[in-house]
Amino acid sequence: MAGQVEIICIGNELLIGKVVNTNAQWLARRVTTLGLNVNRVTIVSDQIKEIANAINEALSRKPQFVITTGGLGPTFDDMTLAGIAEGLKTPLEVNQKALSMVKEKYRKLVKEGRIESIELTQPRVKMATLPAKSEAISNPIGTAPGVIIRHDEAVIVALPGVPSEMEAIFDASVAPLIKKAAGNNIFFETSLEVDGIMESDMAPLIDKTMHDNPYVYIKSHPSRTGEGTPHLELHMSTTAEDVITAKNRVTKTLIQITDLAQTKGGKIRISKIK
Amino acid sequence: MAGQVEIICIGNELLIGKVVNTNAQWLARRVTTLGLNVNRVTIVSDQIKEIANAINEALSRKPQFVITTGGLGPTFDDMTLAGIAEGLKTPLEVNQKALSMVKEKYRKLVKEGRIESIELTQPRVKMATLPAKSEAISNPIGTAPGVIIRHDEAVIVALPGVPSEMEAIFDASVAPLIKKAAGNNIFFETSLEVDGIMESDMAPLIDKTMHDNPYVYIKSHPSRTGEGTPHLELHMSTTAEDVITAKNRVTKTLIQITDLAQTKGGKIRISKIK
Repeated sequence: MAGQVEIICIGNELLIGKVVNTNAQWLARRVTTLGLNVNRVTIVSDQIKEIANAINEALSRKPQFVITTGGLGPTFDDMTLAGIAEGLKTPLEVNQKALSMVKEKYRKLVKEGRIESIELTQPRVKMATLPAKSEAISNPIGTAPGVIIRHDEAVIVALPGVPSEMEAIFDASVAPLIKKAAGNNIFFETSLEVDGIMESDMAPLIDKTMHDNPYVYIKSHPSRTGEGTPHLELHMSTTAEDVITAKNRVTKTLIQITDLAQTKGGKIRISKIK
Repeated sequence: MAGQVEIICIGNELLIGKVVNTNAQWLARRVTTLGLNVNRVTIVSDQIKEIANAINEALSRKPQFVITTGGLGPTFDDMTLAGIAEGLKTPLEVNQKALSMVKEKYRKLVKEGRIESIELTQPRVKMATLPAKSEAISNPIGTAPGVIIRHDEAVIVALPGVPSEMEAIFDASVAPLIKKAAGNNIFFETSLEVDGIMESDMAPLIDKTMHDNPYVYIKSHPSRTGEGTPHLELHMSTTAEDVITAKNRVTKTLIQITDLAQTKGGKIRISKIK
C-alpha cells in the first residue's frame, strides 16, 4: 500500500464555481506518478476556522503529506498560514529566510523598474509570516514563498494558488520529498476503448477480472450513453514496487479483459493515456 | 446568510488526476447563482467506508443540501448508494420506481436495436437498489436514476458522474429545490482588471473597501506575476435578498475600489464575467 497524500485547496473562487480546480488535478497526477496515493481532496473557503478544520481533519487520517494550494499572498483574505497555525495551535512569526526571499523579489522588481518602492509594507511582510518552525521554500516565479511544516509524522506543504507558481515550487522542492517517501513504488496504467457493449453487460466481466487481478484497479468510463453504439473506456492502473511487476500485472489484466469483452462481441482498441 | 450546500465527488479517476473535476465547478456555479452557498467540496475514492465518512462529516456541518456526483452506475465499484446507506445506517433495497425507470431505458434500447437483451441482470438491478426511503429521479440522458434522500433537516442528492447526465438531472429535478430553499436570495458579481499595481500594494486598498462594504466579498487574482506590468483581477460578489440591494452593494464597492486604485496609479477596466 502506497503512502497517502491529502490535498486541500483553499479559495472562495473554487466554491462559487468561478474557476475549475486544475491545481488539484495537476497535483494528484504528479503525486500518483511519483508513487504515492491521493486519498482525499478538499476545497474550503478563505476562512481561518475552515482551513484549520480541514487541516486537522486531514491530519486525523494520518497521511504522509498534506498539500495545500492557495491563500499565501499579501491580501488579508490570504489566510492559509493563519489557518494552519490555528489548526496546529502554533504561533505565527516572521520567518527570516522567508523575509529575505520576499525582500530579494522586491529588490529585483525595483531594479527592473517595474515597481518604485522596496519598502517592506505590512502586506509584504505578511508573506513571510509563517507558523513557527516552518521551512520557507523558494518560489522561482512569484513572490510568496512556499512553506513546509513537519508535524508529528506528517509533512504539511503550503503552495500558492497561481498554477505556474504552484507547479514550479512543487517540482523544485516537493517532488523530491514525495519521490523519497514513495521509495521504489511505481504507478503504471493503460486504457482500452470498448465499443458495442453496454456498461451493465461489461460489469460482471470487470468484476471477474478484478477478482483475478487484485492489485489492479479497473474503472469503466461510459460515454455516448445517449445515442449510437455504447462506448466505454476501461482504465487499468496499479502501484507496485518495481516497474516489471507493475507492467506484468496490468498486461495480464489487459489480456483477460480483452478476451472476455471479445467473447461478448465487444470491439477493442488500446487507447493513448491522455 | 444563504443556506449551505456541500458537494462530494466520488471517483478514483479524480484522485489519480486522470480527469479534472469539472462537475464540482459546474455544480458550484449553478448552486451559487441559484442563491445558496457551497461551503465545501470533497473528493473521495470508490470505497464504501470513504463515502460513508464523507457523508457523515458533511451532515455534521448541518448543510441544507449534500450533492454527490459519481458512482451510480452498474459496475461493482459504483459504490455511492452503498456508501450513503452505510453512512445513514439505512438498508439498501430495490426501489420500484427506480426499477421501472431502468426497465424502460433498456426496453427503449432493445426497441432501437442497440442492445439485444432486456433482461434485468444483477448489474442493471443494482442501479435501482437505493437506500430505504429514497426518491428516484429521472435521468433524461443515461440509465442510472438520480436519488434524493431526506435525512433530518438535510436533503442528500446523488447524481451520476457523466457530466451530461449529472447536468440534465440537476437542471430538471434539483435546481427547483435549491431555488426554493434560496428564497429571494440572489447572487451578483462583477470583475475589474487592474494594471500597474502589485497585489501587495493593492492589499490595503482592498482591505479598506471590504471593511466599508461588509456584505461584498472582494478577491484579487494576480496574473503575469513573472514578467511585464503587474496585473490583477478583482472579483466582487454578494448574495442579497433582492436584486437591487445586490447590485447597489457591488456598484458602491466597484466605485470605491476604482477610486482608490486610480489614486495609486492603477489602470482599470471592467471585465466580462466568464
